[in-house]
Amino acid sequence: MSTKMNISNHNEALLAQHTRRLDFLKSEVNLPAGILQKLKDFQIAIPSWALGTGGTRFGRFSGGGEPRNLEEKIADVGLLHALNQSSGAISLHIPWDIPTDPTAIRSLAAQHGLAFDAVNSNTFQDQAVQAHSYKFGSLQHVSAATRKQAIDHNIEVIKHGVELGSKALTVWLSDGSCFPGQLNFRHAYERTVDSLREIYAALPADWSLYLEYKAYEPNFYSTTVGDWGASYSMVNKLGPQAKTLVDLGHHLPNANIEQIVSILLMEGKLGGFHFNDSKYGDDDLTAGSIKPYQLFLIFNELVDGMDAKGMNHAKDLGWMIDASHNVKDPLEDLLQSVEAIQIAYAQALLIDRAALEAAREANDVVRCQEILQAVFRTDVRALVAQARLELGGALDPIALFRQEKMRDQLIKARGAKTVATGL
Amino acid sequence: MSTKMNISNHNEALLAQHTRRLDFLKSEVNLPAGILQKLKDFQIAIPSWALGTGGTRFGRFSGGGEPRNLEEKIADVGLLHALNQSSGAISLHIPWDIPTDPTAIRSLAAQHGLAFDAVNSNTFQDQAVQAHSYKFGSLQHVSAATRKQAIDHNIEVIKHGVELGSKALTVWLSDGSCFPGQLNFRHAYERTVDSLREIYAALPADWSLYLEYKAYEPNFYSTTVGDWGASYSMVNKLGPQAKTLVDLGHHLPNANIEQIVSILLMEGKLGGFHFNDSKYGDDDLTAGSIKPYQLFLIFNELVDGMDAKGMNHAKDLGWMIDASHNVKDPLEDLLQSVEAIQIAYAQALLIDRAALEAAREANDVVRCQEILQAVFRTDVRALVAQARLELGGALDPIALFRQEKMRDQLIKARGAKTVATGL
Amino acid sequence: MSTKMNISNHNEALLAQHTRRLDFLKSEVNLPAGILQKLKDFQIAIPSWALGTGGTRFGRFSGGGEPRNLEEKIADVGLLHALNQSSGAISLHIPWDIPTDPTAIRSLAAQHGLAFDAVNSNTFQDQAVQAHSYKFGSLQHVSAATRKQAIDHNIEVIKHGVELGSKALTVWLSDGSCFPGQLNFRHAYERTVDSLREIYAALPADWSLYLEYKAYEPNFYSTTVGDWGASYSMVNKLGPQAKTLVDLGHHLPNANIEQIVSILLMEGKLGGFHFNDSKYGDDDLTAGSIKPYQLFLIFNELVDGMDAKGMNHAKDLGWMIDASHNVKDPLEDLLQSVEAIQIAYAQALLIDRAALEAAREANDVVRCQEILQAVFRTDVRALVAQARLELGGALDPIALFRQEKMRDQLIKARGAKTVATGL
Amino acid sequence: MSTKMNISNHNEALLAQHTRRLDFLKSEVNLPAGILQKLKDFQIAIPSWALGTGGTRFGRFSGGGEPRNLEEKIADVGLLHALNQSSGAISLHIPWDIPTDPTAIRSLAAQHGLAFDAVNSNTFQDQAVQAHSYKFGSLQHVSAATRKQAIDHNIEVIKHGVELGSKALTVWLSDGSCFPGQLNFRHAYERTVDSLREIYAALPADWSLYLEYKAYEPNFYSTTVGDWGASYSMVNKLGPQAKTLVDLGHHLPNANIEQIVSILLMEGKLGGFHFNDSKYGDDDLTAGSIKPYQLFLIFNELVDGMDAKGMNHAKDLGWMIDASHNVKDPLEDLLQSVEAIQIAYAQALLIDRAALEAAREANDVVRCQEILQAVFRTDVRALVAQARLELGGALDPIALFRQEKMRDQLIKARGAKTVATGL
Repeated sequence: MSTKMNISNHNEALLAQHTRRLDFLKSEVNLPAGILQKLKDFQIAIPSWALGTGGTRFGRFSGGGEPRNLEEKIADVGLLHALNQSSGAISLHIPWDIPTDPTAIRSLAAQHGLAFDAVNSNTFQDQAVQAHSYKFGSLQHVSAATRKQAIDHNIEVIKHGVELGSKALTVWLSDGSCFPGQLNFRHAYERTVDSLREIYAALPADWSLYLEYKAYEPNFYSTTVGDWGASYSMVNKLGPQAKTLVDLGHHLPNANIEQIVSILLMEGKLGGFHFNDSKYGDDDLTAGSIKPYQLFLIFNELVDGMDAKGMNHAKDLGWMIDASHNVKDPLEDLLQSVEAIQIAYAQALLIDRAALEAAREANDVVRCQEILQAVFRTDVRALVAQARLELGGALDPIALFRQEKMRDQLIKARGAKTVATGL
Repeated sequence: MSTKMNISNHNEALLAQHTRRLDFLKSEVNLPAGILQKLKDFQIAIPSWALGTGGTRFGRFSGGGEPRNLEEKIADVGLLHALNQSSGAISLHIPWDIPTDPTAIRSLAAQHGLAFDAVNSNTFQDQAVQAHSYKFGSLQHVSAATRKQAIDHNIEVIKHGVELGSKALTVWLSDGSCFPGQLNFRHAYERTVDSLREIYAALPADWSLYLEYKAYEPNFYSTTVGDWGASYSMVNKLGPQAKTLVDLGHHLPNANIEQIVSILLMEGKLGGFHFNDSKYGDDDLTAGSIKPYQLFLIFNELVDGMDAKGMNHAKDLGWMIDASHNVKDPLEDLLQSVEAIQIAYAQALLIDRAALEAAREANDVVRCQEILQAVFRTDVRALVAQARLELGGALDPIALFRQEKMRDQLIKARGAKTVATGL
Repeated sequence: MSTKMNISNHNEALLAQHTRRLDFLKSEVNLPAGILQKLKDFQIAIPSWALGTGGTRFGRFSGGGEPRNLEEKIADVGLLHALNQSSGAISLHIPWDIPTDPTAIRSLAAQHGLAFDAVNSNTFQDQAVQAHSYKFGSLQHVSAATRKQAIDHNIEVIKHGVELGSKALTVWLSDGSCFPGQLNFRHAYERTVDSLREIYAALPADWSLYLEYKAYEPNFYSTTVGDWGASYSMVNKLGPQAKTLVDLGHHLPNANIEQIVSILLMEGKLGGFHFNDSKYGDDDLTAGSIKPYQLFLIFNELVDGMDAKGMNHAKDLGWMIDASHNVKDPLEDLLQSVEAIQIAYAQALLIDRAALEAAREANDVVRCQEILQAVFRTDVRALVAQARLELGGALDPIALFRQEKMRDQLIKARGAKTVATGL
Repeated sequence: MSTKMNISNHNEALLAQHTRRLDFLKSEVNLPAGILQKLKDFQIAIPSWALGTGGTRFGRFSGGGEPRNLEEKIADVGLLHALNQSSGAISLHIPWDIPTDPTAIRSLAAQHGLAFDAVNSNTFQDQAVQAHSYKFGSLQHVSAATRKQAIDHNIEVIKHGVELGSKALTVWLSDGSCFPGQLNFRHAYERTVDSLREIYAALPADWSLYLEYKAYEPNFYSTTVGDWGASYSMVNKLGPQAKTLVDLGHHLPNANIEQIVSILLMEGKLGGFHFNDSKYGDDDLTAGSIKPYQLFLIFNELVDGMDAKGMNHAKDLGWMIDASHNVKDPLEDLLQSVEAIQIAYAQALLIDRAALEAAREANDVVRCQEILQAVFRTDVRALVAQARLELGGALDPIALFRQEKMRDQLIKARGAKTVATGL
């Protein structure tokens, strides 16, 4: 698809309106120096498994034109990136996306302007070829042979990542138990840490290991890395390259995620993010679709915490979407997620931090709320669009995606009955 | 306080900026015919018990200048209404606010432009004079004498309401149980319905009875009117004047309140609202302070459902705040709540319903989300301010409240150690 | 498998110990007249889809020897029933278990002493042959053609049930929405009721329609029949043969299920049960494995409520297990579930209701708790075992299942890599 | 009250029945060596604030005969201890229970056989005399003077404790925030740790500091020590004498508390317990009244984890009840709580740990569940009663309390309208 030219036409048609909106925004708020550059630098990785229609244990209703292999997944992310210029990385999942020819894959990705973000291991499913089952866990397993198999798999994932230029391994463990009594929690914890130590030992010096936590599912009584406290206590035992990864859907009801983010950042143990949204559990809905204010509050903590440590917003944490698109076109959904994340980030950058700190020091709770709400109620879409525009993206990515009938083109090219690997 | 003139000065200083914002908004969205009038008509009742600093079972940290009697409560609501012209009603709570001279009270309220909204009975606390304790419930109580006392109290509350011009009785029952086995659920339900029937029989023909439900607290095992289903089944037994009242904080975690609102409206059984916000339980936080998108989604259902029935937005449901201001100035907090509610209402009015229904009929989930989010991301504060302006209120009520040092004036007049009746 | 003789030997070896336990229990509590007969009459239906290893969206770890067809499913339930004499019914799921030769199937079931409980329709998955997809719902669908297809399917399920001697249709709808805005709640409700009316019209005069509710999953924003209130309001519209079905895992966190059961029973609208247990959501764990006291409290309400209406415990409600056995042998798990349900039922039958009511009328909360806890702390396993013994079942079903290496026999007969239909 | 002789008579009347029960239990299970001694050694501290009727923010319904001062509180705990011989310690709360004459108080306690357990500070309420308010926090407060005041208070509490022979300080902080933006989480955390460091520095060498966590209430947006991870990270910074205290009601919905207990124990950072039960939040209900199986599972982890470290069950952790008795006689309620805790402990001691570990190592999930459930379904009340009997307590404490009309005696002595200090 010759997206380039179409983007030009598309933008041209919308430019006057866009300019008016941006001008108004500038007249309303003081844009901090460098805010546009920050928005332009901020890239959100697309997971390779989010390019197909997701499903639940009750079924899956596939859409058409889903990518059938790694090359087509890269093409899809490339398409997203061409549209929004903010999805400049892809996060692979092994074994769903084993790159048989890494050089060719790197080259293909480079053509789309894509880098390789964190690589993800999978020890929550059994593969046809494997000797030992993960039915009762992987890194926690009572059998040393099973643990060894899971450790080796993670080390292999690192190798794939090195070939592609990744710099981080994300470890999500479904390990846990379904029934009281099933697990010796202590042994499960210790075995997991011991296994992680072996993986950590195989980590290149410039890599990070992100240890994700999750409250429940697919185990329904306990999860061995079940909350931030468990992950934090483990990564502390591993070393400075090990950090905690926060997935927004992996908490118990009502959890204050922004506070967890703040503490982990302060402790130097926040590694990265899996963005999505949820109402009940790990619903994997579009980022910002259920609780947009929470997303803003999380970015408030991120900006504040990273600035306090002099961190580079774009580079010093891993940013990734992890969602499932059961009833939407996956590409449209990803465009919505990225836009929602950018809006939250842009708004967080607009907060008058000096005023906020002053109000806090005065215990002026009303004023604190006013400051945050004023920013949240400000329409910053033009600012985000301007960043896209300056990078060569589309002013309205979804509109363009639809105008160009891109899904129809994909269906024509790939077929109406394709099913991408993933959940 | 001579609020009138100050409002003029205040508005004059902000007018140019305000006009620019409003003009921009008008250039961005098609304002539906009558939207300003709807916003102007929309009045949110202030509960008499929300004018003092609230507390928890762990303590209460009173502020200063709290109203010491019903007259001062009316003055406080009058002050709010002078500022925002959207708080033109007060909801009394008996026995905290027994009007000894109803004529004088009505006259005082009228001077402030205030009407009397629903009156609230209290059978969740024991009063010094009462013969029977509500420790084990009121309308559900095993003792007929206790039930009778509670019924009589409600009928007396109706009488007070009639004298003031109220048109509705709100019944919130804390009745329930703290331990498994304590209560015969069936008998509790039946006794409650029987008691409600007697109260209903005393209802004037132009009155409504609102039956509030609550999942838990102050009873921690069961509540007899515990969810919308329980309230709905009861009001159906009572008759057409009985309806369900929804308090946003009275649900189990993750409840879809907007869906409940939609069903009750459809069934003709939604009576009114207690607005507040919460993260954990009945936290009674400022409306819109935690989940503003949820508030918008609720108003989306309200506007859609009321329009489908040809209802008058302003008059055909009871709108009331029910919040507790533990760490804020209660008046400032109420201004924040009213503003948040108005914003949600204004945004709901801006939704392109034809487009939304078309997208729904096409199962275009992405488009449905785009339509709602586009409105939610639109900055409508100028529209709400314009409604205030046209009514004679302040463009920025909190700013004016602070500029005029109104709290200081109240403290000077009433003292720094006052404690208003309430929770 | 010649289970008969083995049961004899097994029981003989345990008889002395069993008799001692039973004698002690009799010396401790007054066994109400007829309690053993009630326990013997109480049969819990086994769902056809629970005979294989379950899974989650993250994967499925099948066991061996799973039934490959309806005949083998009946054989499995027959085996369970031979062991515990309390699983004398099977609940089929269409289209997973379409009986091509109903006469033969009925005859086979009869040989195992099995009746056919409620039949279950499936409009939450697409079948290869169907014209319209359920991706966006079935009975609520915006398209009349899709609704018609779903209605026809339900009517066909009734026909299959009639052929087998079933007397009830269980309708569980996954219909709902994943995102705010996606659904017009009102239209979805109305369309669902309209569709149900057509199904109801096709119901034989001696049949019941059970309308199940569920808070969430597989839809993650709203479910159209989302709670008991929604189901109750709908079955009231349908007629006397329509009732609500309670699945223990289908509630929001912390819901008081026993109270819901009590109200539905009182209203004459409780139809039946899906037993399982859960810690987080619809975890589908073994009944009684997480919250055994809750299970007891539910049976407390069931016994009390059914007795108040003069209902037959065994026949006037539908009793069924609905669980998923991800990490256990499904047959062993089902034996555990049935045992846990029987224990809860037996304990509920032992409650001194006169004493409990007296304590309630006296507001003696301590005594109420003592009465329930005393029964719950009483070891009634011998009583349940005696019921099994008198019916010809095994004193210790799981022990016998293991001694006889029944799973090994099934694997030998059916293979190690079988996958039963189901979730 | 001459409880001694009455206990003899009471026990004599019940002895034959008791002996028969105990004998049966001995015939059923292998009592591990020393189990009775462990039960006898296990003492649960009674908090001084749990001796009066509790309340909620909606009201408080006091009972009669509540203790009016510290001496009467000690008398009440003495009475409990005389009855069950398992409540041999009292946990004081400063400033509610300042011992003006410590020597006399120690002597009085000694007469009742009572020791002084952990002392509790209170920085969640303002006292009449204090210079700075805790409205916006104490150890986290933005003002150094307020923090200093709170630190000094804690140090003073330690001094009171030293005089009485306590060995631990329990710090529960309500510090947090009610609204997004109110608090700089990072500064709040750091200030809290800094303040705790000063308190820790004042700790005697043989003392422990227990840092309690709580998810929410009385702050409804964030709590600074909000979960075990926050407490754990803080006590790690303080030193070896600082540990985490677990209150069963202080978690988000569905939390797996037993796993938290296991990890903290393993990490050497579990300090002690506040026992209660809850359905919704910090409901402070009687221990074991809602989720008795959870209580058993917690003791399963405690016994296993303490044994793994060679800890003394009775002495190496702090055991305390923290409940609120809104609708029960507080003394009867405490007897119920202690009994429920002892039953859970006794059952945990009966678990065949070798068999359980073997089943775990074999991934025999069914067997693991069988082992735990078999113990939980065993009636161990006679074993707990035997421990009481051997210590000189009553076989049926509540029955004796009622027979002797002890509450009537207390009302006669103290009056019907007393209100004990507490919540």
